[in-house]
Amino acid sequence: MAGKKAPYVGGSLLTIGDEILLGDILNTNAHHIAVTLRAHGFRLERVITVEDQEDAIAAALHQLLPVSAFLIVTGGLGPTDDDRTKHAVARAFSRPLEVQEEDLRRLQGRLRSAGRTWNQHVHRLAELPQGATQMAPGQPIAGFLLEHHQVPCYFLPGVPHEMEILLDEIVLPDLMRRFPKRPAIGKRILRVQEMMETEINQRLCRFDWQETGVALGYLPQVGENWVTLLAVGQSQAEVDEALDKAEAQVTALLGRKHISGRDDESLEVVVGRLLRQKGWGLAVAESCTGGLLAQRITSVPGASEYFERGYVTYSNRAKVELLGVPAELLEAHGAVSHAVCRAMAEGAREKTGVEAALAVTGIAGPTGGSPKKPVGTVFVGCSAGDQTLVKRCLFHGSRERIQQQSAHAALTLLWRRLTS
Amino acid sequence: MAGKKAPYVGGSLLTIGDEILLGDILNTNAHHIAVTLRAHGFRLERVITVEDQEDAIAAALHQLLPVSAFLIVTGGLGPTDDDRTKHAVARAFSRPLEVQEEDLRRLQGRLRSAGRTWNQHVHRLAELPQGATQMAPGQPIAGFLLEHHQVPCYFLPGVPHEMEILLDEIVLPDLMRRFPKRPAIGKRILRVQEMMETEINQRLCRFDWQETGVALGYLPQVGENWVTLLAVGQSQAEVDEALDKAEAQVTALLGRKHISGRDDESLEVVVGRLLRQKGWGLAVAESCTGGLLAQRITSVPGASEYFERGYVTYSNRAKVELLGVPAELLEAHGAVSHAVCRAMAEGAREKTGVEAALAVTGIAGPTGGSPKKPVGTVFVGCSAGDQTLVKRCLFHGSRERIQQQSAHAALTLLWRRLTS
Repeated sequence: MAGKKAPYVGGSLLTIGDEILLGDILNTNAHHIAVTLRAHGFRLERVITVEDQEDAIAAALHQLLPVSAFLIVTGGLGPTDDDRTKHAVARAFSRPLEVQEEDLRRLQGRLRSAGRTWNQHVHRLAELPQGATQMAPGQPIAGFLLEHHQVPCYFLPGVPHEMEILLDEIVLPDLMRRFPKRPAIGKRILRVQEMMETEINQRLCRFDWQETGVALGYLPQVGENWVTLLAVGQSQAEVDEALDKAEAQVTALLGRKHISGRDDESLEVVVGRLLRQKGWGLAVAESCTGGLLAQRITSVPGASEYFERGYVTYSNRAKVELLGVPAELLEAHGAVSHAVCRAMAEGAREKTGVEAALAVTGIAGPTGGSPKKPVGTVFVGCSAGDQTLVKRCLFHGSRERIQQQSAHAALTLLWRRLTS
Repeated sequence: MAGKKAPYVGGSLLTIGDEILLGDILNTNAHHIAVTLRAHGFRLERVITVEDQEDAIAAALHQLLPVSAFLIVTGGLGPTDDDRTKHAVARAFSRPLEVQEEDLRRLQGRLRSAGRTWNQHVHRLAELPQGATQMAPGQPIAGFLLEHHQVPCYFLPGVPHEMEILLDEIVLPDLMRRFPKRPAIGKRILRVQEMMETEINQRLCRFDWQETGVALGYLPQVGENWVTLLAVGQSQAEVDEALDKAEAQVTALLGRKHISGRDDESLEVVVGRLLRQKGWGLAVAESCTGGLLAQRITSVPGASEYFERGYVTYSNRAKVELLGVPAELLEAHGAVSHAVCRAMAEGAREKTGVEAALAVTGIAGPTGGSPKKPVGTVFVGCSAGDQTLVKRCLFHGSRERIQQQSAHAALTLLWRRLTS
C-alpha cells in the first residue's frame, strides 16, 4: 500500500480485557476508535490487548509510551477488584494514587442523596494517579487524562457507550487542540457487485497506482467486494481530487455497471433511493432468509416511503395462502424451485399492488439438501414491469452465511432491474 | 477476576493489517482464534495489531517471542507488495528467504495447466524464511510454520476462511502435540433477562467467589446481560463440578426466572425448544423491527418445525389487509399503540391458526417521534392461550439498537409466556 509514510499523527491503543482474549466479545472499541480517529486526521499505528493484570498493563504502558504521539487506553477502570488500570499506571509511570478530594465530596453527596451507604469501592473511584484529571467530574463515568513525558494519555472505560461519549466529548477535542497540523485524510470505499476478487485485482493491476498517491486495498464482504482508496494530502480539496481521479480510474477498469455505491451506500440504501425516484412501492416474499431481506431493506431510515410489506412465508401453507402460489406447483417442483420462486414474486406483487416485488426460496441448511438441490441452493426472483426474472444460485458456508448471501443476491437483482 | 494465574499454556497473537488499524474491518480473526484456543485448553495472553510495514512487524516479533509459549501471526502473506510478513520474519529472526524448490515446481505446474504465465509474484509465493515449512504444500493457501528459539510460530493468511482452515487442520493439532499437559478449562455464560447489570452485580457481590475457584465476569448485551463463569482445573470433571456449583449459586442469587439459558442458548433457541415441546406453532407480525424478529427466530436450524410465517406489516394498509387490524383503531390510536399491537398479535394468530403470535410496533427513528411517543417507544405483544399481553417499552440509541432491543423484548415476552 502506498501513502504509508504520510505525515499522520500516529497513536497507540491499549485495550484491556480478559473478555477479548478469551473470545467472549469482539474488540468493537478498537474498531470504533480507529474509525473515529481516521475521520479526524489521526491514525492508530498499533493496538495491543492485554489481560486485566497489573504486570501486563504496566509492561504495555512502558512499551507504548516512547513510540506514541498519543495513547488511548480502554478498560479496567471500574470499582471492582478486577479493574487494575489505575494501579498499573501508578506503577508504570511512578505516579502514586491520590484521592481527589473534590471528587470524593461529589461522590459522597450523590450517594447520600440516593440513600446508599459508603464503601471502599466508592472510595476507589475518587483515586487517580498523581497529575491526572477526571474527564467527567461529577458524572458517573470513569475516565481520566494524564500527560506523561509530553505524551497525552487518555484512560477510558471499557463499556462501549461510555467510552464513545468520552472519546467524542473529551479525547477528540483535546487531540485536535494539541495537534493542529494534521494532514487531510480521505478514504473511499467502492462497492463492487458480481465480480470476483481475483478478477477485480487483475483488472486494477493494469494501472500504475503509485503515481496517483492513492493507496488501493481489497476487502471481500458477504455478497460483494470492496475496493478501498486511501489518500493523504495537505488539504481536503487535494485529497478529494486525488480520490475522484482514482475512483474514475477504478470505474473505468471495472466497468460502471459493477459499482453500486460508495462508502455507506449499501445496496439497500441505493435500491431505496432508486425506488423513491421512480415512485415505486416494494414488497418482498421470503422463505429461507426468514425476514433478513425485509430487515435489510427496513434498516434504512425512511424505508416506509417505498417498502409496503414483507411476507415471511416459511411454511408451504403460507406460500399458498398469502402469495397464491398454486399447491400443485409446490407439489410438482418443490418449494425450492424456479417455478415457485417466480410464483412467489408475482404473487407478492399482485396481492400488494406494488410496482416491484422480490422473492427468495432456498435451502439454508445445515440439513434439508439433496443431490439435485444441495444445501446452499437458492432461487431469487424479481418481478417488475412486465418481467419476472429468476436466478438460481449455489452458496457455500454456514446457515447464516447462506442466508446473508441469498438476501444480497435478491437485492442485487432488484438493483440491476432499477438501473437497467 | 480469580483463576488468572492458572497453568494455561499462554500464547500471543500478532495480527497484521492496515485495514484493522484504519477501522475498515473488525478484527474477527483475533476473536475466532481466541475462542478456538480456549476451547482446547490454550489461552491468548496478548494480541498486537500492527501495520503492513516491515519495521513494525519485525519489532512486534522481537517483542513477542521471548514472552510467548507459542506465537500465531495472521496477515501479510499474499504475493503483492503490501505483504511484508516474510521479509519481516527474515530480518527479525535472521533467517534469509529461500526458494522452496519443490513448491516452485508445484506452482509452475499449476500455472502451466491453467494456461497462465510465470511472474515475479508467483516466484515470491515459493519463498520462505530459512527453516520454515509450508503448512499446505501444493494448495493455494499461504501459511508456514517456523520454530525459533524453541517457540513454535505459526504464520497464517489474513483471509478469514483460509486462516480458519489452517488453524483447525495444522495449528491446533501441532499445538496439542507440543503441549500435551494442558489444564482443563471450562467457561460458561449465563444469560440473564430483565435485570440491570448493577442489580446483578449487587446481588452476586453478596457471595464470596474466591473460594469457588471460579472467576465471574459481566458482559452487557443488547436486551440481556451475560454473567460469565471461568474455571480452570486438573480435569474436565473437576472444572464441570466447579462450574455447576457456581451456576447453582448464581441462579440462587439472581432467581431462576431471570436466567434464560447458557452459552449458545439464545432466547430464540430456548423459545424454539419450548415451542417444539408444546407442539405450538408461531407467527409474528412486526412493523418497526421490519423482519428482524422473524430473522432471529429463523436463524435457528429447524425453525420450520414451529415457525409458520411472519408478517412484516410496514404500512398501515398491510396491517389492515393481512392482520385484520380495524382501520378505525389505527385512526383512533395510531399505529404505535397498545390497541394496535394487541390487534396485530391477535390478528396474526387468528389468520394463521397457530397457538402463539408475537407483535411489535414502534418508532425506531431517527425521525417520527412526538412528545407523547418519542423515538424508541415500542409496544410488544404476545397472544397465546386465552391471553394477549402487551407491554410498552422505551428504548434508547440508534435505529438499529432500538430495532434489536424491540425484537429482544418480544422474544422475552414469549419466553415468559412459555415458561409461566
